[in-house]
Amino acid sequence: MPPIGRTRWAIAEGWIPRDSSFAGDRALMSHETACILNAGERDAHVLLMIYFSVREPAGPYAFTVQARRTMHLRFDDLTDPAIPRDTDYSSVFISDEPIVVQHTRLDSRKAEIALMSTTAYSQD
Amino acid sequence: MPPIGRTRWAIAEGWIPRDSSFAGDRALMSHETACILNAGERDAHVLLMIYFSVREPAGPYAFTVQARRTMHLRFDDLTDPAIPRDTDYSSVFISDEPIVVQHTRLDSRKAEIALMSTTAYSQD
Amino acid sequence: MPPIGRTRWAIAEGWIPRDSSFAGDRALMSHETACILNAGERDAHVLLMIYFSVREPAGPYAFTVQARRTMHLRFDDLTDPAIPRDTDYSSVFISDEPIVVQHTRLDSRKAEIALMSTTAYSQD
Amino acid sequence: MPPIGRTRWAIAEGWIPRDSSFAGDRALMSHETACILNAGERDAHVLLMIYFSVREPAGPYAFTVQARRTMHLRFDDLTDPAIPRDTDYSSVFISDEPIVVQHTRLDSRKAEIALMSTTAYSQD
Repeated sequence: MPPIGRTRWAIAEGWIPRDSSFAGDRALMSHETACILNAGERDAHVLLMIYFSVREPAGPYAFTVQARRTMHLRFDDLTDPAIPRDTDYSSVFISDEPIVVQHTRLDSRKAEIALMSTTAYSQD
Repeated sequence: MPPIGRTRWAIAEGWIPRDSSFAGDRALMSHETACILNAGERDAHVLLMIYFSVREPAGPYAFTVQARRTMHLRFDDLTDPAIPRDTDYSSVFISDEPIVVQHTRLDSRKAEIALMSTTAYSQD
Repeated sequence: MPPIGRTRWAIAEGWIPRDSSFAGDRALMSHETACILNAGERDAHVLLMIYFSVREPAGPYAFTVQARRTMHLRFDDLTDPAIPRDTDYSSVFISDEPIVVQHTRLDSRKAEIALMSTTAYSQD
Repeated sequence: MPPIGRTRWAIAEGWIPRDSSFAGDRALMSHETACILNAGERDAHVLLMIYFSVREPAGPYAFTVQARRTMHLRFDDLTDPAIPRDTDYSSVFISDEPIVVQHTRLDSRKAEIALMSTTAYSQD
């Protein structure tokens, strides 16, 4: 039985609010996350591309999700280049091992947080 | 390796609240968005149909998502015809190139925003 | 090109809050919805079964989604039997024509609404 | 016609907030749920593994979803071991019968609840 997952994933939504009601609290600051599960027995080497509406894509960003581990990657942690705030983007993940990707935004522009989440689109 | 995505997408949910607590702020006004990623090397020509509960569909609306770009299409930006508020609708996208579609609603009928999002249904 | 959609859909989540901050306002009363798109040229005849945690399923509920129309079915509108509040349930839709189903909850137990939505699970 | 569902499911997102504005109210306490539908005629025996970012997986947790029943499994009800709060995790379900899994978080760190939900990723 092969490990669960696929090797290519896309998240069409992407937008990190510049504003946060809780700017000093990392957990409650407005942010978007890609939760990446590697349930297999081999480390997964992942390349991430970021697509924008009016300029060339950024990336690839390269990282490793270890075997039998999850990585909750915050898009506001990406550097070189950083993702601009209040800007439309999308993301594509390409892995050498099967992974599972889920997208989440925590939005705290207002005093009460709002959440959204979805399993990303996958394809081998 | 073909570009990631599929050529037909459907979003069964659709409902743009007439009311907004932040009517003067475009980003916080109640709205629904179709985020459309074209990660491929060719422009995608997309036709959008809008389905209603008690009348004939509207469209097709035609637009282009450029190669290696994302387009975050707000349904309240559609014209000729515009989509009525407080009205049930659904949408179908047909593209000549593979794309990925994700649906989002920001609802600000109340003073705190609510969010929801899902990868749309796809089929070639 | 066949119409978009599949003939069987399942929503594993189901829970209608008994409480609402806006009990007199149908749109803002806590509720769950199955948004059902029939983008095809023939009416879809749909059977809905409701599954519970500690008793036999209810249904089938039978209804028609007309050709080229969407139906946003509120689970709190089901009768004979009605779905109890504050009770875990799941739902399965079987159609004679391809349809697309998306699940949404609006939760107004508190003074600010919360939303969640997902494309349902599909299979022919 | 086989029962609807698949035998393997993954939820990449996982994070149970330690804080709740309604700590004394089980329904409104911050929690995550896996809603599991078994619409078939045979009981489903399910093994659940929990994956973390910096340590070995926990599990398998074993449970049964009876035929023609739904189970809304709260991750904060797991014991031996319990899932730590404010900690990234992911989950994988393996069943001997087809099931359907949907993931939900109710977040009440703030006085107004936030919700998110998605159909999990599935594969046979």
